[in-house]
Amino acid sequence: MTIFEKIIAREIPAKIVFEDDEVLAFHDVNPQAPVHVLIVPKRVVARLDEAKESDAQLLGKLILVARKIARELGVSESGYRLVINSGPNAGESVPHLHVHLLGKRSLGWPPG
Amino acid sequence: MTIFEKIIAREIPAKIVFEDDEVLAFHDVNPQAPVHVLIVPKRVVARLDEAKESDAQLLGKLILVARKIARELGVSESGYRLVINSGPNAGESVPHLHVHLLGKRSLGWPPG
Repeated sequence: MTIFEKIIAREIPAKIVFEDDEVLAFHDVNPQAPVHVLIVPKRVVARLDEAKESDAQLLGKLILVARKIARELGVSESGYRLVINSGPNAGESVPHLHVHLLGKRSLGWPPG
Repeated sequence: MTIFEKIIAREIPAKIVFEDDEVLAFHDVNPQAPVHVLIVPKRVVARLDEAKESDAQLLGKLILVARKIARELGVSESGYRLVINSGPNAGESVPHLHVHLLGKRSLGWPPG
């Protein structure tokens, strides 16, 4: 069981900012920007590489939830970056697909 | 008309790696990694903040096309990062929604 499943199961506390049947979103415990939220599907998909073609709607929903949170946290106009890491070269940290939302500071290029 | 519309219209050349009715993908002209591909919807959506709820399927498709290209370019196992920039703090470069796919090198953290 990963830390994300424990957060979803409320076995580990987290600062939750969004929840519905399919998705949970909470502040990253190691924030890399003043706004740094993780958007996670409740159903375990280890990483993007293991998503199915039938997961298109769920993947799109993760992106739209990130956008909604960006609005609620007031970073829509100033700007924000979404990041999905898959595999070792990306520094994938937890084997449970998640979208990073970063904002409220100027984000450099390249993105890592 | 942005540079992406001109690429879609074949008015500007690009190294295209994927095309279907809805999506075009091509190598970034300023690559930030040995693999750096842009995945673009043919229909103009200026940025994520302007996507509609009904665009969930399209957004999911952009992610799955990126995943497919990652496989074809041989970075699925070594890993890759997807990035979507929205607005000035993210350094949004072209007002036409696009997903960056970066791979074939170790990507640092934070992602910009």
